[in-house]
Amino acid sequence: MDASTQTSPSTVPDRETLERYADLIVGLGANVQPGQLVEIRAELDKAELVREVAASAYRRGARYVSVAWHDPYLRRARILHSEHPLDYVAPWDTFRVQQLGERRAARISISPMNPPELFADVEPAQVALEPYDYIPAYQELVRDRTTNWVGVACPSEGWADRVHPELRPAEALAKLWEEVLHICRLDEPDPVAAWERRFDELTRVCGAMNERRFDALHFEGPGTDLTLGLFPTSRWAGGPHVTVDGLEHVPNIPTEEIFTAPDPARADGFVRATKPFLLKTGALVEGLVVRFEGGRAVQIDADAGADSLREYVATNEGADRLGEVALVDREGRIGPLGSVFFNTLYDENAASHLALGSAYLDTVGDEDRVRANRSTAHADFMIGGEDVDVTGITRDGDRVPVLRGGAWQ
Amino acid sequence: MDASTQTSPSTVPDRETLERYADLIVGLGANVQPGQLVEIRAELDKAELVREVAASAYRRGARYVSVAWHDPYLRRARILHSEHPLDYVAPWDTFRVQQLGERRAARISISPMNPPELFADVEPAQVALEPYDYIPAYQELVRDRTTNWVGVACPSEGWADRVHPELRPAEALAKLWEEVLHICRLDEPDPVAAWERRFDELTRVCGAMNERRFDALHFEGPGTDLTLGLFPTSRWAGGPHVTVDGLEHVPNIPTEEIFTAPDPARADGFVRATKPFLLKTGALVEGLVVRFEGGRAVQIDADAGADSLREYVATNEGADRLGEVALVDREGRIGPLGSVFFNTLYDENAASHLALGSAYLDTVGDEDRVRANRSTAHADFMIGGEDVDVTGITRDGDRVPVLRGGAWQ
Repeated sequence: MDASTQTSPSTVPDRETLERYADLIVGLGANVQPGQLVEIRAELDKAELVREVAASAYRRGARYVSVAWHDPYLRRARILHSEHPLDYVAPWDTFRVQQLGERRAARISISPMNPPELFADVEPAQVALEPYDYIPAYQELVRDRTTNWVGVACPSEGWADRVHPELRPAEALAKLWEEVLHICRLDEPDPVAAWERRFDELTRVCGAMNERRFDALHFEGPGTDLTLGLFPTSRWAGGPHVTVDGLEHVPNIPTEEIFTAPDPARADGFVRATKPFLLKTGALVEGLVVRFEGGRAVQIDADAGADSLREYVATNEGADRLGEVALVDREGRIGPLGSVFFNTLYDENAASHLALGSAYLDTVGDEDRVRANRSTAHADFMIGGEDVDVTGITRDGDRVPVLRGGAWQ
Repeated sequence: MDASTQTSPSTVPDRETLERYADLIVGLGANVQPGQLVEIRAELDKAELVREVAASAYRRGARYVSVAWHDPYLRRARILHSEHPLDYVAPWDTFRVQQLGERRAARISISPMNPPELFADVEPAQVALEPYDYIPAYQELVRDRTTNWVGVACPSEGWADRVHPELRPAEALAKLWEEVLHICRLDEPDPVAAWERRFDELTRVCGAMNERRFDALHFEGPGTDLTLGLFPTSRWAGGPHVTVDGLEHVPNIPTEEIFTAPDPARADGFVRATKPFLLKTGALVEGLVVRFEGGRAVQIDADAGADSLREYVATNEGADRLGEVALVDREGRIGPLGSVFFNTLYDENAASHLALGSAYLDTVGDEDRVRANRSTAHADFMIGGEDVDVTGITRDGDRVPVLRGGAWQ
């Protein structure tokens, strides 16, 4: 054995680190309660973390942990060989999701769940039809806030290779794990305390933004000049959520963003994506530029993947308008690493971003909810960076700096 | 590369062979119909075969293939860390199984599902309590014959190591695959035709036994002298089954046995197991000798695992009486190989056997069904061999040879 072998990092964290990560997911994230049912959704290759999460949930007193394993190869087999409608959902899957709400279960979702290579030769519209990602009942759970849930990510060889293609597989996996643990504050002696400090900051900014009640936001930077209307009742949210029963949970770990639903009828100008991103169909979109008129994406250009995005937008009702606007400052841990993660959970917390498609309806007041964007699609793309200024426009037309050089003003 | 590397067998069959196996499972076995829902139950390490089976089912016109993945590590985590009752079944699991019956689904179960090492340090009674293997609704599906189903096996590294511990892992896996493919007649040009010939033989023997309506069977061999009562309506079954709707399917591939339910009140004498076997709790039982009086197992001795079997029998209602008797001749492909598979599906088709615990109620007429043995347990153990004679005893006390030297008489 030579020295390089001895000092090379192990490809997977040791058992103790995995257990600490699991405890963070189950505790700070989902906030699993004694006696609760718990659902974990994950791909087969996340089994090691899934088992630690299940053990952690049982230690916290979970009544039963049910794992909804996802296997994209089955999805592919269905798309390639089935002659039946691809949007059929088995009755027991719908029943399970409804029961999760009725019984006030906890939910833990572990991404990524969709190796894009696997669908490269399949019609994007068919991939989008596959209902796993959007069993309609799941959307109701989020809307009704009946479950305490968290979405997290777990490195795998396939994901690591996509993020760090320049490294050998074991090194890529080790580096991605290192980044994930850093971003999730697991390199802190007390990760929960570190997150609580971050949540305090996000809560403070949400409070300030909600007090301002801007009529619109203006994004200005290289290739970007976009004005985006907000509802009078658009409510900025970030950090922990609270269920209908008052149980606090953190829907995303990591989370560095504050977000709300814009008015889908008021977006004008053009915007350049500052990072490449993946569609749910598996297509990679790079160098995107979108022009909006009256809220509609009227022109889509890109260095790569423009056709895929155009088809995605054309085949999903409501995908040609915006459902989410999110702001991220430079204090988060993701942006400074410089990596592109090709994983929404990570990339959307690296920089300010927009999403074509569905809005989070709980960020809009009752009176405006009917006007918020509805869609089966939700495609996030990053538009922020230190050279992109964000300015709030008041109902009187005053301009108020919000983000300058990546810092809250 | 040296010559030995070049000639060593590959550890997993090529794609084409896996596909042929999948087609046999989906076609001859479950006999999946166009438009049917299909459930596959398997452990995560069988993913490669599961995906081929799903593709095959879609090619035959399945409407949707739902995989109920089983992960024994989750079961272990629950047993070790849960403070809640271990026999709790999630409402959606019960609902799913009921729906499989109501909607006349096809079911495919891929064993083995329980690496015994994993539970070596856990109380057997706790393992038995975990409900995965016996969600009560599954028993109803079998009783009511509402689903067309098949149970098959898929080699894995763990299983191969148990069967062939003397070989290196890759060689053990290759040898086990070779045995499985041979036993399943996949080394025949037309496996289905080969199975149809075998089923004709089993059907012929069942017919002859059912015509005789023996009052009892007498097993005689080294360490064995056991007389076993049968009901007047005990019906011998073997080979294909027929669902309540008249759909033919083959519940086990391989299947070499004919079997029925004995009278649990009439077993007298002693019997020696001719092969070691595994309990569902993971315990290995070797050199078993059981003495029966009036149908009850009154004395259990063994070279290894006697305590485990005694505890299994003591903690499962009805596990101290017999629920099944099965006869296997020497024409099957499993016995001649000489391997012990530690997998009920394979070992029970190697030799005549008995099972402590639950009876298959559809092998008893209505008037005797209430007297057939009922239990949550079902533990098969092999008692047959070429040196074990099986004799039928008529209601008049006449003795009729059934098996001599492993051949039907």
